[in-house]
Amino acid sequence: MEFPFSSLDQLKSVHARIKPGIHKTPVMVSASFNKRAENQTWFKCENFQRTGSFKFRGALSAVDSLSDTERQKGVATHSSGNFAQAVALAANLSHLTARIVMPENAPEIKKAAVRSYMGIITECPPGLQNREKALLTIKEKFGCTELHPSNQIEVIEGNGTISLEFLEEIPELEAIITPVGGGGLLAGTALAAKQINPDIRIFAGEPANADDAFKSLHSGVIQPSINPETIADGLKTQLGDVNFPIIIEYVEDILRVEEEEIIEAMKFIWQRMKIIIEPSSAVPVAAVLKHPEIFGGMKTGIILSGGNVQLDQLPF
Amino acid sequence: MEFPFSSLDQLKSVHARIKPGIHKTPVMVSASFNKRAENQTWFKCENFQRTGSFKFRGALSAVDSLSDTERQKGVATHSSGNFAQAVALAANLSHLTARIVMPENAPEIKKAAVRSYMGIITECPPGLQNREKALLTIKEKFGCTELHPSNQIEVIEGNGTISLEFLEEIPELEAIITPVGGGGLLAGTALAAKQINPDIRIFAGEPANADDAFKSLHSGVIQPSINPETIADGLKTQLGDVNFPIIIEYVEDILRVEEEEIIEAMKFIWQRMKIIIEPSSAVPVAAVLKHPEIFGGMKTGIILSGGNVQLDQLPF
Repeated sequence: MEFPFSSLDQLKSVHARIKPGIHKTPVMVSASFNKRAENQTWFKCENFQRTGSFKFRGALSAVDSLSDTERQKGVATHSSGNFAQAVALAANLSHLTARIVMPENAPEIKKAAVRSYMGIITECPPGLQNREKALLTIKEKFGCTELHPSNQIEVIEGNGTISLEFLEEIPELEAIITPVGGGGLLAGTALAAKQINPDIRIFAGEPANADDAFKSLHSGVIQPSINPETIADGLKTQLGDVNFPIIIEYVEDILRVEEEEIIEAMKFIWQRMKIIIEPSSAVPVAAVLKHPEIFGGMKTGIILSGGNVQLDQLPF
Repeated sequence: MEFPFSSLDQLKSVHARIKPGIHKTPVMVSASFNKRAENQTWFKCENFQRTGSFKFRGALSAVDSLSDTERQKGVATHSSGNFAQAVALAANLSHLTARIVMPENAPEIKKAAVRSYMGIITECPPGLQNREKALLTIKEKFGCTELHPSNQIEVIEGNGTISLEFLEEIPELEAIITPVGGGGLLAGTALAAKQINPDIRIFAGEPANADDAFKSLHSGVIQPSINPETIADGLKTQLGDVNFPIIIEYVEDILRVEEEEIIEAMKFIWQRMKIIIEPSSAVPVAAVLKHPEIFGGMKTGIILSGGNVQLDQLPF
């Protein structure tokens, strides 16, 4: 196996650089989950990462790779979700300005979180076109560097540090599964894990109602995500030209799960493990439970991507 | 300071005996909590204990101390809550029979948990008298040993093992606070912590709507708990003659919190720490936030007692 992408040394160097800023998240196990899945599963808890999701790793990695000139002009992104908070905190820790385009209808709690990290919010009407237009205006006005939540190699490398930690702690893992939305977590996971152990099997879980990544992997061409309707709101985005080649090369399969399977898996983790995961994180959990023919008896690692939920809008 | 109660050696011996059966629960911190409380706080996460609450430690300690003759006849208790599950699992692990009296109106999920640990349930009409009557019948019929959730020294010693672990991991703690209901957790905590560090300050949080322990401590006489109405359903019970002398001797104060303060503290922990705690666990959290004049600047340990909640009946 050859890696035309970031080398293991490069990933380790990113890890060393962002280590002082990130939490080394715990790995948890659940006897009742193992019993149900008929295997041994380890959960890498990025819901305990700073800002409540893995996105902080990629954001910090990207901010950290900026030149001095770029740092002076700051960074910008558009996001209604976890990447907004992640970029705001990463920039704040590095003493540079973050400008975040957020749709007007983004939850107030998410806007408040961005503000608490000193991020400057520009509101725009909902919709990808409006967000991109607003971001372009900001980039032209301030000359700041755009950060992409999933399709930028520095972000993907930052995400890869999760699996460096995971496989250092649990070297016997035979498979790792992540959720897939934009593809940045899946690509980073594959990059790191496959270089540490070429025999490891890499999977993703995806909502059946937003299965553009499944279709992309099986057709070999990036498929658009058209009006996805899923409770896993972090997974509505589509793959990109930077992460797709990595996914094509190293991911064994993408497994689709239904909405009720996502909700049931989320509830199981809350009830039995006493930790809060967001619906997107429950997607790979549901996939493992749905496919005993793959994961039964297998030493499986699940990356729990985040824990940001609106407590007054729970599906149970 | 002299200890007429269980010695530190005795507590360590209990810990050594139950160690193979219990989880060594993690200690967590939260930068946002520290910021708000203006101190350093460590959380000992018994919500991650087996059966979802600290009660398992006391139950296992009590089961473990039985004679061979007693083991053959099994154990019995009445409980609508966490002690039921704890006794069922402790007995199951020790290959003896647990008979649990539960009120007919106990949540189905709690009955299912007891059954999953092979506990034998006897249902009775709600009300303490009915429960005690049903338990007496069972004891007479089967000759089994009654276990008490809070007023039995073996249970209190089992609870004390929490603070052995807590102070071993965070020896700099200047105060520990627990919830108080029946008094078993508070007494066990005081017993262990005061022998390790006589200068440590021991507090409890209690719902203002169920403040019999507060009144007991301040009057020197155990006060009954009369029709308490609180969301912290684990704290409706009253102190007992075994734990009260320990509490009188070593507990500095019991701090009362209102229902809305409990709910707000619970929501804060869920949102910021991404862990699930039950309302009873939120009571000492609320007390720390309410009393900066005590806990401000103080290295504070909070024991999060459990994480068993009905997810379809959340207060937010």
